[in-house]
Amino acid sequence: MSNRSPIKSVRWSNDGRSVRIIDQRELPERLVERDIAMLDEFCGAIRTLAVRGAPAIGVFAAMGLACVMQRRVELPRDAFDRELETAAERLRATRPTAVNLAWAIDRMLACAASTPGEPLGVATALRRTADALHADDIAMCRRIGELALSLLTDGARVLTHCNAGALATTGIGTALAPIYLAQEAGRAVQVIASETRPLLQGSRLTAWELERAGIPVTVATDGAIASLMRAGKIDLAIVGADRIAANGDVANKIGTYALAVLARHHGLPFYVAAPTSTIDREMASGESIPIEARDPNEVRAFLGAPSAPLGVTALNPAFDVTPAELITAIVTDRAVHYPPYDFRRIERQDR
Amino acid sequence: MSNRSPIKSVRWSNDGRSVRIIDQRELPERLVERDIAMLDEFCGAIRTLAVRGAPAIGVFAAMGLACVMQRRVELPRDAFDRELETAAERLRATRPTAVNLAWAIDRMLACAASTPGEPLGVATALRRTADALHADDIAMCRRIGELALSLLTDGARVLTHCNAGALATTGIGTALAPIYLAQEAGRAVQVIASETRPLLQGSRLTAWELERAGIPVTVATDGAIASLMRAGKIDLAIVGADRIAANGDVANKIGTYALAVLARHHGLPFYVAAPTSTIDREMASGESIPIEARDPNEVRAFLGAPSAPLGVTALNPAFDVTPAELITAIVTDRAVHYPPYDFRRIERQDR
Repeated sequence: MSNRSPIKSVRWSNDGRSVRIIDQRELPERLVERDIAMLDEFCGAIRTLAVRGAPAIGVFAAMGLACVMQRRVELPRDAFDRELETAAERLRATRPTAVNLAWAIDRMLACAASTPGEPLGVATALRRTADALHADDIAMCRRIGELALSLLTDGARVLTHCNAGALATTGIGTALAPIYLAQEAGRAVQVIASETRPLLQGSRLTAWELERAGIPVTVATDGAIASLMRAGKIDLAIVGADRIAANGDVANKIGTYALAVLARHHGLPFYVAAPTSTIDREMASGESIPIEARDPNEVRAFLGAPSAPLGVTALNPAFDVTPAELITAIVTDRAVHYPPYDFRRIERQDR
Repeated sequence: MSNRSPIKSVRWSNDGRSVRIIDQRELPERLVERDIAMLDEFCGAIRTLAVRGAPAIGVFAAMGLACVMQRRVELPRDAFDRELETAAERLRATRPTAVNLAWAIDRMLACAASTPGEPLGVATALRRTADALHADDIAMCRRIGELALSLLTDGARVLTHCNAGALATTGIGTALAPIYLAQEAGRAVQVIASETRPLLQGSRLTAWELERAGIPVTVATDGAIASLMRAGKIDLAIVGADRIAANGDVANKIGTYALAVLARHHGLPFYVAAPTSTIDREMASGESIPIEARDPNEVRAFLGAPSAPLGVTALNPAFDVTPAELITAIVTDRAVHYPPYDFRRIERQDR
């Protein structure tokens, strides 16, 4: 790795009373850290994508609940529980597609439900659970990286979409984890980052964190990737996931499905890397995954500059679903899963 | 059509001594017209995409030569010819991929070569040739529209990429010509415009000119089109072309090839509409078509706002090549051509 300190997308602030985030809206221009303490701010940070990436959002929401509830320990227990429930539901509603958010929140609610006694003890238990989720996330990233590393040939030119790196998790990322480990092992690797309109997480975030780590990265528009594939300049693709259905269908950032079709057309492997917590075993197929429709102004403007006539109809689905048959393998923190996928009985990492 | 006056992307100014253009860099925010008279300005307008679209560039360059040379009629004939040649080569070098530019310039040079006598007579002949190219372009658009109209079912939801409309020609466009004619005939039609990064000609220009004409248009990012196809929201695709090889391979705006692969994957027809002058019968296949590499800063920023880390490696090919086997039909001003394409002996519209 380079000699720069690793990125910490989400962590406790020094006094432990707030959560310090890298405000991802400011990248790549400025590295701005922000301390978040109020429920409104936690919800806002997720909704506005100051914190983003399915694993990071899950940890951040858990830390948010712990943070907010540690100030409410003087309430009677039933009022404390009601406030926790309200806060949990507000956080859960911020983004509908990524399942890790709901999963982390459920873990926090289960922790409270199984902790008897006064709010002080519950708040302590919530904090411990949030910290465990945080530690698990870091370890999960590394395990995904180790498993996925075996899929990378030496000198591989790896396409990734959006950002499933350190900024999207609290560790070394999911799709980017094997990239960081390849570099650690002294293996040559390079990344092609598709820019990922409308919010440009590929060119803004993936390019930023890889450059910072000294890993060669090339940015191209989403529409240019097909030509690069045809010209033999991409060896494989790895992307993250926001939700994986029991049959292996994958919801991920809008544009992922197009790349999967293009990879198939060009005979390139297309991998998905995500923690087990991203698997929604209750969801039979990707068709039922709720797709967040974001503000059309994200499409009608580009970094604040108008890119379409004012008020023109614009579609802005934040995610798409890639059917399992286009996915070469799904790498979780447990295993490299090959088709046919069947996650109906997979255990999440519930302690 | 709506009651707004038709768009004139390129025309003579009122006194006939300069060429009036719509400066397409200012759209969709402002409709700015600019009068161009000097050779440097003609070259700059093409290079900076103030005037763009293969057919429009061809007509504009021809008008530019006529405009510039009409001020040089007091030169001796040999000096006049040398200046014409120099101006022609400077204009030809502005953009390498679209073949209509070179074709129109060759027409102008052939006109001069075949006109004996004093420069005044040559300048008059050049002006007549430029006007003929202009008139032919308008007629060509309409013929393409009439032929392509037969490919549109009633109520068709038509995907187009970049801008191959009135702004890209001096008439009603190529890919958009059947859309305008469908509206004229009272037939329901709607357009999905892929935004076309990096310069967003789809969302900035296609959306603008269709809205202005009262034709329903929806903008989506390039990465979102695949989901729309999968969801059954697109019936067919029509795009323009910058150069068509003898075997039917088509160079067009970057991102076109991806859409052609996606259309094939989803079983949707993928049409190309372009004048016969776009066919380069000397070029056996698309592999030899020169692809303009534009400034990487077009990818790293948009209207001055950084979308990637400063100085990160970025690729910015302006065009890609769609192989003939992905193209359902090529509509020219002469015919609807179906595969296998063989344009080796096709006649251009040389008078």
